[in-house]
Amino acid sequence: MKTEYPEINPTERILMGPGPSDVSARVLAALAKPTLGHLDPEYLAVMDDTRSMLQYVFRTTNELTLAMPGTGSAGMEACVANLVEPGDEVVIGVCGYFGARMAEMAERHGATIHRVDVPWGEIIDPAAIGKALADHPATKVVGVVQAETSTGAHQPLEEISRLAHGAGALLLVDAVTSLGCVELRLDDWAIDACYSCTQKGLSSPPGLAPVSFSPAAAEKIWSRKSVIRSWYLDLSLVSKYWSSERVYHHTASSNLGYALYEGLRMVVEEGLEARHARHLYHHRALRAGLEAMGLEYIPDHSLPNLNAIHVAAGADDLVVRKRLLSEYGIEIGAGLGPFAGKAWRIGIMGSSCTQRNVILVLGALESILGDMGVPVPKGAAIAAASEVFASN
Amino acid sequence: MKTEYPEINPTERILMGPGPSDVSARVLAALAKPTLGHLDPEYLAVMDDTRSMLQYVFRTTNELTLAMPGTGSAGMEACVANLVEPGDEVVIGVCGYFGARMAEMAERHGATIHRVDVPWGEIIDPAAIGKALADHPATKVVGVVQAETSTGAHQPLEEISRLAHGAGALLLVDAVTSLGCVELRLDDWAIDACYSCTQKGLSSPPGLAPVSFSPAAAEKIWSRKSVIRSWYLDLSLVSKYWSSERVYHHTASSNLGYALYEGLRMVVEEGLEARHARHLYHHRALRAGLEAMGLEYIPDHSLPNLNAIHVAAGADDLVVRKRLLSEYGIEIGAGLGPFAGKAWRIGIMGSSCTQRNVILVLGALESILGDMGVPVPKGAAIAAASEVFASN
Repeated sequence: MKTEYPEINPTERILMGPGPSDVSARVLAALAKPTLGHLDPEYLAVMDDTRSMLQYVFRTTNELTLAMPGTGSAGMEACVANLVEPGDEVVIGVCGYFGARMAEMAERHGATIHRVDVPWGEIIDPAAIGKALADHPATKVVGVVQAETSTGAHQPLEEISRLAHGAGALLLVDAVTSLGCVELRLDDWAIDACYSCTQKGLSSPPGLAPVSFSPAAAEKIWSRKSVIRSWYLDLSLVSKYWSSERVYHHTASSNLGYALYEGLRMVVEEGLEARHARHLYHHRALRAGLEAMGLEYIPDHSLPNLNAIHVAAGADDLVVRKRLLSEYGIEIGAGLGPFAGKAWRIGIMGSSCTQRNVILVLGALESILGDMGVPVPKGAAIAAASEVFASN
Repeated sequence: MKTEYPEINPTERILMGPGPSDVSARVLAALAKPTLGHLDPEYLAVMDDTRSMLQYVFRTTNELTLAMPGTGSAGMEACVANLVEPGDEVVIGVCGYFGARMAEMAERHGATIHRVDVPWGEIIDPAAIGKALADHPATKVVGVVQAETSTGAHQPLEEISRLAHGAGALLLVDAVTSLGCVELRLDDWAIDACYSCTQKGLSSPPGLAPVSFSPAAAEKIWSRKSVIRSWYLDLSLVSKYWSSERVYHHTASSNLGYALYEGLRMVVEEGLEARHARHLYHHRALRAGLEAMGLEYIPDHSLPNLNAIHVAAGADDLVVRKRLLSEYGIEIGAGLGPFAGKAWRIGIMGSSCTQRNVILVLGALESILGDMGVPVPKGAAIAAASEVFASN
């Protein structure tokens, strides 16, 4: 065994991938405050305020709103495992990696899955969901991804919600990459269950998964006939810890809780409308710059906060990403699945969504691509982005 | 909705409950280092060193050693969910809350459970495990808790290991409250699967769960006939992220990873033998002091690092704990389940295990109990503990 381990000293990155996003000094300072026990009255007060701020960012009055003790994928599995009983029919829209993950989870928890697949990069036509519901009238849950992290596609939800409820089903929404960045209205849009993460739009470190359930979803969970297959993610247990009963379930990480709390405080201070506008505005500048360089977006309906583009013709995917990291400290995302080696995913989320970062990533890409012999019109990207910034 | 949320400013506690234990300034500083992406080469190097140090604290060469992205209970469920297939017969020793939790999880994952129950506070006679194995010769897994956090009982493992392997079963051990505090030897004792947490003997914040699997356990997992019921805890996926393949599974919390790394570095620096001796020595002093006050231990075989005692006759459990917290900033643990209102659990784990804390908690208890009219021999506790400290 090694016996000498160096002091930890990570390089300060600029996190412009699909997550994590940059964590501000303010949030890092909150993270490192003294650890409290999970039943300390001071920490219980932090939990109550966290729930209140989560209700704000989810735009909901749902009582069953809390942070699960795991990453966004734990939030996904918590929603699926609690909502679905063995034999339940479930319609899931799949237009990328995370829709497919949701379907796989639902299958593990015993559901009968009806997938509505569209090619990666596209969004799902609500009519296709409508057809699946007509074909499978016993469907209990419809699951869709608002922000498909693998393709950058931005799925509208309101028509799908109408169709799901018209068919007597509950609507489950993946908001891992959307919460805090784009509009999301649980109550107005009648979303019954929703999960997200802490490390994208909320710019806190990863490790917790905000979830929220409508009264109808809660009713389905409380009236289950079968015990849920995961003990760790069982809401009938976790919710008792978040309720006034405060029944011990797991040892909550107070430090992660502080960081989420501080990230949420920053969202409350900025205001959701202003925050969404900020993401949209920086996206317009980034998009103008990327397209001026000749780079092409993958999805027709792009998220503002996650920009998935085709790897530049003639460029080596891996070399470009490595140079961005080593020369500029910039992390962008690679392609997943069928897009491996073919896509770049540039995130401007939360604290990473700044004019400085947009101009820097455009300038860095122009420099690296030019150096690799990829034909890039000189100065066009910065000019196009600057025009958007100047017009604001 | 509230619109004003105060800055987070937790009181500095002295954490002497069943966990979390005190997190040192050194570990908190590591926690707050700049966030890295979960695929950043610098973070992957941290993971490799973390695995190496986990192998050291587990006393194993097991390749399948890693930290699951959740609390100790996620580690418990990861072990159970991966090792057990529907219909497998499992023998589980239950002498407290956490053995019962393990049995409940195994049931959720489809196992047929044979419980070996003993009264809370006792340890399990290996002969009772032997009898269960004779009664159920198809048993695939034997599960026991080394450190029963609900009762403070310290379970010897070597004879149970011999019996389990003699019957062709694998041995699963809960080391949530023992790792880093008391002797635990995965390879020498032929433990096939083991899980722990970060916030007790390792004195890092909660949120990760170290686990380790022997080659035989790994072989059982890789040759499963059924898909495991939890996607989030599926080792066939998580292990690919920890292997050189680095296949994305979840967004690892680099900050929690730094803190675990730093906590482990402190264990390596101290050395396991010295660390175990430190816990034993402070336990002897604490025990001498508590018993000099007339307080009685619950288990016959007490853990050194978690001291479960009967609530003093004539004292109000809740008032004593509240006064310890408000007047001294000391958190001790309450009783769980049948011990609710009847037990105090005093932890001296990792960074909390100091002479200063032992003397303080004895002095504070003597002061509060005396003030409540509980007859306590004046000065006896401090004198008895001091004698142990002086003799070292």
